[in-house]
Amino acid sequence: MTDTIVDFRTEPARYRHWKLSFDGPVATLAMDVQEDAGLRPGYELKLNSYDLGVDIELYDAIQRLRFEHPEVGAVILTSGKERIFCAGANIRMLGQSSHGWKVNFCKFTNETRNAMEEASAESKQVYLTMVNGPCAGGGYELALATEWIVMADDGNTAVSLPEVPLLAVLPGTGGLTRLVDKRRVRRDRADFFCTTEEGVKGKRAVEWGLVDEVVPRSRLAEAVKERARALAAKTDRPRQARGIALTPLRRTLDGDRIAYDHVTCTVDRARGLADITVAGPTALPPAEPAGVAAAGAAFWPLALARELDDLILHLRTNEEQIGLWVLRTQGSPELVEAYDRLLLDHGADWLVREVRLYLKRTLKRLDVSSRSVFALIEPGSCFTGTLLELALAADRSYMLDGTLPDDARPAATVKLTGANFGLYPMINGLTRLASRFLGEPGRVDDLKGRMGQELEAAAAAEAGLVTFAPDDIDWEDEVRLALEERAAFSPDALTGMEASLRFGGPETLETKIFGRLTAWQNWIFQRPNAVGPKGALQLYGTGERSDFDRRRV
Amino acid sequence: MTDTIVDFRTEPARYRHWKLSFDGPVATLAMDVQEDAGLRPGYELKLNSYDLGVDIELYDAIQRLRFEHPEVGAVILTSGKERIFCAGANIRMLGQSSHGWKVNFCKFTNETRNAMEEASAESKQVYLTMVNGPCAGGGYELALATEWIVMADDGNTAVSLPEVPLLAVLPGTGGLTRLVDKRRVRRDRADFFCTTEEGVKGKRAVEWGLVDEVVPRSRLAEAVKERARALAAKTDRPRQARGIALTPLRRTLDGDRIAYDHVTCTVDRARGLADITVAGPTALPPAEPAGVAAAGAAFWPLALARELDDLILHLRTNEEQIGLWVLRTQGSPELVEAYDRLLLDHGADWLVREVRLYLKRTLKRLDVSSRSVFALIEPGSCFTGTLLELALAADRSYMLDGTLPDDARPAATVKLTGANFGLYPMINGLTRLASRFLGEPGRVDDLKGRMGQELEAAAAAEAGLVTFAPDDIDWEDEVRLALEERAAFSPDALTGMEASLRFGGPETLETKIFGRLTAWQNWIFQRPNAVGPKGALQLYGTGERSDFDRRRV
Repeated sequence: MTDTIVDFRTEPARYRHWKLSFDGPVATLAMDVQEDAGLRPGYELKLNSYDLGVDIELYDAIQRLRFEHPEVGAVILTSGKERIFCAGANIRMLGQSSHGWKVNFCKFTNETRNAMEEASAESKQVYLTMVNGPCAGGGYELALATEWIVMADDGNTAVSLPEVPLLAVLPGTGGLTRLVDKRRVRRDRADFFCTTEEGVKGKRAVEWGLVDEVVPRSRLAEAVKERARALAAKTDRPRQARGIALTPLRRTLDGDRIAYDHVTCTVDRARGLADITVAGPTALPPAEPAGVAAAGAAFWPLALARELDDLILHLRTNEEQIGLWVLRTQGSPELVEAYDRLLLDHGADWLVREVRLYLKRTLKRLDVSSRSVFALIEPGSCFTGTLLELALAADRSYMLDGTLPDDARPAATVKLTGANFGLYPMINGLTRLASRFLGEPGRVDDLKGRMGQELEAAAAAEAGLVTFAPDDIDWEDEVRLALEERAAFSPDALTGMEASLRFGGPETLETKIFGRLTAWQNWIFQRPNAVGPKGALQLYGTGERSDFDRRRV
Repeated sequence: MTDTIVDFRTEPARYRHWKLSFDGPVATLAMDVQEDAGLRPGYELKLNSYDLGVDIELYDAIQRLRFEHPEVGAVILTSGKERIFCAGANIRMLGQSSHGWKVNFCKFTNETRNAMEEASAESKQVYLTMVNGPCAGGGYELALATEWIVMADDGNTAVSLPEVPLLAVLPGTGGLTRLVDKRRVRRDRADFFCTTEEGVKGKRAVEWGLVDEVVPRSRLAEAVKERARALAAKTDRPRQARGIALTPLRRTLDGDRIAYDHVTCTVDRARGLADITVAGPTALPPAEPAGVAAAGAAFWPLALARELDDLILHLRTNEEQIGLWVLRTQGSPELVEAYDRLLLDHGADWLVREVRLYLKRTLKRLDVSSRSVFALIEPGSCFTGTLLELALAADRSYMLDGTLPDDARPAATVKLTGANFGLYPMINGLTRLASRFLGEPGRVDDLKGRMGQELEAAAAAEAGLVTFAPDDIDWEDEVRLALEERAAFSPDALTGMEASLRFGGPETLETKIFGRLTAWQNWIFQRPNAVGPKGALQLYGTGERSDFDRRRV
């Protein structure tokens, strides 16, 4: 465990860096970073630069806008400071951070920006940016994750990605990919832009597609508000509905045990693994969306998403040495199935939609975690529908064929529901089933016919849903050996291998960001030219010039 | 320059590691590595393991099979040794190599395997593998690059990718990607397979899709021959045609100057750049394919492809410190256009097809080179059609608007031909024009209407074909500054940036290999867990166990 535990739970009353305000269907999210409130000592968050703490608040705000504000159809992202939009990630923070911290930080910021895009596309809560001052590096990448960028047309305001010329690293939050793949900026212009410290402003920024509009400063606020109102007018979110409060998440941290209401985790340091158990619901779901709203944050699928989400972030950030996550479930398959039915039948309800999307994001977060994931399917488990996705997300699954001596519970089964056929696409845009059967697409159709069937181990293995199905004689040894072996491999090689095997098939903006851009950035984050004693990241601000090893690799 | 210059030019009479034999339409390429003939001192090439020298011969053999053997429709890749197919890349060689050497080695081996796949798909010279002994790591990756894998069904023969468990690195030649994306092996099975040192053999290898057939050893050779003959029967290659000889490539290396018949290069070490000039043809092309065959290796487009190909490989391997390649052309646009017309009109001819494909591969090699590429378009140049691709492949282009004082030549023009609209797709499957105008696909259609027009600088910039078009007053300073600036940036950051900006749009097996897998491998190739004094790659064969830093990144 790291020295100080990073807690991802927060709420608007505790924000130090963001101001959230509302004007009917338009919300404004203003970045106003408090310089002396960095998450760790050793740096000041000048010029609206950010660290993980700033991003944790942003992440929280985005979640709350979705769940607590059904009336909001557009969100203006801007700066609360007079003379700067955002200078990007804090350089001193990066300079003093370990390799692992930098990479984990970039992963979380990437996920948060992807969530903004998902909110725009799927929650119909559209983000746009008012660039009211210099907008550099991660600042511009934040803008790139919104659907419309309006920039002040003045001598001072420009967008830029100065990472390469200034810091010898890459823009770390999807900037390069979004330039050429989302905004489709011509690659030679992108090349020039990404090597030009001072960036691009005014008309050229529009002509090159770097922003959507430039507007005189005097008209900026009004122009953005107008655009926001127009975007909000097109939302399908219900203006009259009441949001649900994302009440504080209950969590106890007791030694190596972390417990939430439905998720528990025990960290086994000797074996280098985390034993995670997800509990199914204990009662039938409400019959109608009104009941979901009444249950609020206690609605099982929402509670599950929040708890699992928090646990993943906790383990990633605070338990770097724990390289293997072992997933189990426990509970009633029938009740999980009943919840799935509710989620499937009422997708048009705004809140049900949000819950589904949150589960989708959480499962995606699991997919892109740099940890091995194994699922163990045993008697008493409920790998059904939504929870079966956990096993399908795993690098491998082991299902006990039969029962164990002295265990009276019936043999485990797995069960497909409609949720497995479209609710939770991966970052490659495919369901986990489709990704699994890239070579036999017809199998996915066949499996549709088996929805609702309780598949015991042999049938599940035959259907391709689990990797191995040892019987009681082999179970203990086979599982133990697999866990031990996994924990003994090189963590780095596993990270690269898993990233390469998990996402076959089509590529998307997200797979490019997590698969390609992240890998390049990780590489550069280790190179002496960036992080060595004479590297650009270390020398930044000292006035000293880097002395690069000029060999091209 | 490195101490010993690696020369990529070779020919069958000089092969030490491969045996090429012919039986009508079926060729056999047998790997029989000579242990004591490593390219560099310090390792023995045991168990049919390979180094760059082995792969240079393989590359040469593949090229010659295409050009010199039109009668061959299928190529059996196998081992010439009794008890081993191939153990993959030589571990001691990797262990003693610099980071840059390892990465460059992997890039070349990847390109060679891609060329095998291209030969199968587009030259209709189909590769298949006879696995006649243990087939590990790079050995199996070689097999994966063929279209059909037949394995001996005995106790000794298995396929495996033991890199992760044994060496703490990734399979470096596309193995992970080809498993899940080409052969579409289920990801959990791939996970198991890639962590199982001893690999998978027999029926399970077929069931999991790791190989296509297993056959008793007694029937192996005949079964493969039969399959090869069946594949060869479907080729459209002309059995009666005569191949053309790839005569030795003339090259002079004189200090910092490299000269071929049509390509010259001067390395400017002070400025960190290579000045490359490509000369257009000096006479009209033959009117018919028969003339192409008669010209043989002297046919200008083929000579150009060979020379440029060799130069790129030379600069990559022997000139690591030269991070910027500046491309110029010189000659008659009309003659280039005439050659393009020939290439376009006679694509059905097997030899013209080979020449087109070779140019395509060479341009792709340029695209994936970890060097900045700038094109300078000046009076006297011939950036037309095929040669315009060089400017479109560049990260940036500068075109002089008008003429320079004391230069009587007319202003430069660029010209589109049909070659720009489909002959040379990039690794993303798109033409360079389509990749350039991802955001405005209609523009590519518009440009089709401008084929054959001589576009001066203003028109070329307007059409989006060049990045900047300074006039004679700005030209010298602007170009000089751009070159100086580029040479001053961090080579690593540029490599990552260029890899991210060059290939927008769709992804393919090849973009995944060069974009994603390579980046992960580069990262892992630097990690102490692989290459540190206690790293797996260093300790291999010593009997000592690695002591991994267990932090997951």
